Amino acid sequence: MSKNISVIRREHFNCAHRLHNPNWSDEKNTSFYGKCNNPNYHGHNYNLEVTVTGELDQESGYLIDMKILSDTIKKEVLDKFDHKNLNLDVEDFKHLNPTAENMAIVIHNKLTAKLDKKFELKIKLYETERNSVIYPC
Amino acid sequence: MSKNISVIRREHFNCAHRLHNPNWSDEKNTSFYGKCNNPNYHGHNYNLEVTVTGELDQESGYLIDMKILSDTIKKEVLDKFDHKNLNLDVEDFKHLNPTAENMAIVIHNKLTAKLDKKFELKIKLYETERNSVIYPC
Amino acid sequence: MSKNISVIRREHFNCAHRLHNPNWSDEKNTSFYGKCNNPNYHGHNYNLEVTVTGELDQESGYLIDMKILSDTIKKEVLDKFDHKNLNLDVEDFKHLNPTAENMAIVIHNKLTAKLDKKFELKIKLYETERNSVIYPC
Amino acid sequence: MSKNISVIRREHFNCAHRLHNPNWSDEKNTSFYGKCNNPNYHGHNYNLEVTVTGELDQESGYLIDMKILSDTIKKEVLDKFDHKNLNLDVEDFKHLNPTAENMAIVIHNKLTAKLDKKFELKIKLYETERNSVIYPC
Amino acid sequence: MSKNISVIRREHFNCAHRLHNPNWSDEKNTSFYGKCNNPNYHGHNYNLEVTVTGELDQESGYLIDMKILSDTIKKEVLDKFDHKNLNLDVEDFKHLNPTAENMAIVIHNKLTAKLDKKFELKIKLYETERNSVIYPC
Amino acid sequence: MSKNISVIRREHFNCAHRLHNPNWSDEKNTSFYGKCNNPNYHGHNYNLEVTVTGELDQESGYLIDMKILSDTIKKEVLDKFDHKNLNLDVEDFKHLNPTAENMAIVIHNKLTAKLDKKFELKIKLYETERNSVIYPC
Repeated sequence: MSKNISVIRREHFNCAHRLHNPNWSDEKNTSFYGKCNNPNYHGHNYNLEVTVTGELDQESGYLIDMKILSDTIKKEVLDKFDHKNLNLDVEDFKHLNPTAENMAIVIHNKLTAKLDKKFELKIKLYETERNSVIYPC
Repeated sequence: MSKNISVIRREHFNCAHRLHNPNWSDEKNTSFYGKCNNPNYHGHNYNLEVTVTGELDQESGYLIDMKILSDTIKKEVLDKFDHKNLNLDVEDFKHLNPTAENMAIVIHNKLTAKLDKKFELKIKLYETERNSVIYPC
Repeated sequence: MSKNISVIRREHFNCAHRLHNPNWSDEKNTSFYGKCNNPNYHGHNYNLEVTVTGELDQESGYLIDMKILSDTIKKEVLDKFDHKNLNLDVEDFKHLNPTAENMAIVIHNKLTAKLDKKFELKIKLYETERNSVIYPC
Repeated sequence: MSKNISVIRREHFNCAHRLHNPNWSDEKNTSFYGKCNNPNYHGHNYNLEVTVTGELDQESGYLIDMKILSDTIKKEVLDKFDHKNLNLDVEDFKHLNPTAENMAIVIHNKLTAKLDKKFELKIKLYETERNSVIYPC
Repeated sequence: MSKNISVIRREHFNCAHRLHNPNWSDEKNTSFYGKCNNPNYHGHNYNLEVTVTGELDQESGYLIDMKILSDTIKKEVLDKFDHKNLNLDVEDFKHLNPTAENMAIVIHNKLTAKLDKKFELKIKLYETERNSVIYPC
Repeated sequence: MSKNISVIRREHFNCAHRLHNPNWSDEKNTSFYGKCNNPNYHGHNYNLEVTVTGELDQESGYLIDMKILSDTIKKEVLDKFDHKNLNLDVEDFKHLNPTAENMAIVIHNKLTAKLDKKFELKIKLYETERNSVIYPC
């Protein structure tokens, strides 16, 4: 049987954000995004789970060193997003609506660019205890 | 890369139920279902996770409006199951044993009938913190 | 400084129940207890936390042997309540409304009767993840 | 034994906020509050636990109707705080720094003003999974 | 539609372990495994989730009797691992490094050998709340 | 009303340990501590909650700077206990049985010695999800 295996690392960060489509009227934004369109922003504690899949390294007994994974998430995601206003402070969302879906895609792309290409990544992002997103699937 | 993405909504409801197969003798029911066959019923806090998968809508940045998803779950599942006796009060289980497996299938069918056909649904139902079911898989 | 210390043991059990006051009219019961008055019962996964407080035993380094505490909870509470209908199957609630408050008091009395009198007990009972009761306080 | 008992209701809400003391220099604010002083705000999912203590009502078997408690929390706290910017949108924090400590005190005062004076209230507010506050104690 | 369904059972056990590759120098072991290489061992509360996938049995409404699944996990995993030193007390890790990855593979093989071949198994093992492993995938 | 308030910080660490009283026979140790007496050790993920109580500082809106609290816990507890064998590697338990009760008392004493005397401390230590200790009380 294949030795394909996944490891999952859980991290968290806290942000302010606002959902808004600049191509829509204020009325459409308010009616579509509801409370999430508040022009003064609201915020969340985001819980992030990064799943890395690949072949087990038989010598070390690791798929990937969890410290490397954790440090990469810290440098590429937490240092850029934590305690920030996603719309105002984070380059990636200057022209992209910071929905949980778009955030998961952005995080996936950032981590894929930095981790070894032999790994496959999956992002699960919890915006609240009740709402989460998985990308890709 | 494809923009296929999933969102997950978590809800909960509380029910009484009893596991029983009317085609079996009382002895077989008692021996097979054990304490779950108690003729006076027992009950659970069910936690329900509905995963919706499809293509991201680039304009809104949403896969699906979480309010529509949550309202549909409320109308099709919570309003029909919550604080009910599954065996006596819920039409779907008049002739179907309310195991967690059958409940997940019934919930899947109810939500599939109401949500846009472009979405694929997966149901995870926790009967207790230690026992859960996923359908389909 | 005093060596007064507490230990807490968490257990769980699943029951059906119905809230109903036989001295009230059906109308008053329905209007007061709402969905919890369903004559066919509903149910819950109850999480129970028993806090035992007393003086540390310096020789063993224990306040109380957790196995004794856990076995006592099992014998006095779980074996009597788990997978039961509280109103129909449990002697304590034949003439007492099985609200979470009354359940906590009953559990407190049952465990106090069996554990060493040198200990003080406190019961926390979760009826759902959002509703819980503490007795005494 | 006294029938003094507590019930606890758990709710949650999401806000943006910024910690800032207008009487201090920008340097002092930055050095004291760190990332929490970000002028563009950050945010949290707040989990709120309201403990109500009093004497059990023997007739109903309730300390307080959980629906009344939940509705009061919704009207006095959630409707005013949820999906808001605490500093800009919420009257209570126009001249009060929205630290978790001050938020717990404000919530305590709001609920005490609306619930029956025979009850004693305690507020536990989680700003993150790791940081929480209790008032009073 | 196929009736393929999964059930998940959650269990836990507590062990001491040490990560060490006997083919490496002490320096390489220390630098690679860091604190996990402590020669005196450290330990964890492991949470184990076993997912069993197959075809629903229409007669019983079960995929598999949860009691059989739970008893098998107890006999094959908990009785052998719980409150043990994985490196010293457990045959499987006498010559295999007890990383979470290797533990998941060992548990998968043990359970596959005992459960009906018609089922497909997946193991999720949490070493901490933040680090987990899935095998196979 | 007094402005007395508490803040709670949650941290975690992983250790091996063994429960053993050197004044008792091996038989008595085995029979009393059961699996926890394994001479090769077992281990746990400990979750630690430190409650600090005192008077709110009106100027900052803080009871205590959470960063100072967290850094003190890290320096006095985590750096000394994490990924260690409590019996062999930690000075405090060379002649003290590392029960959860004794660990809570040791942690209380370490933190009390370092934090401002105006604060009152309470330690809650989870040895498993089901077993925890509070000191003092």
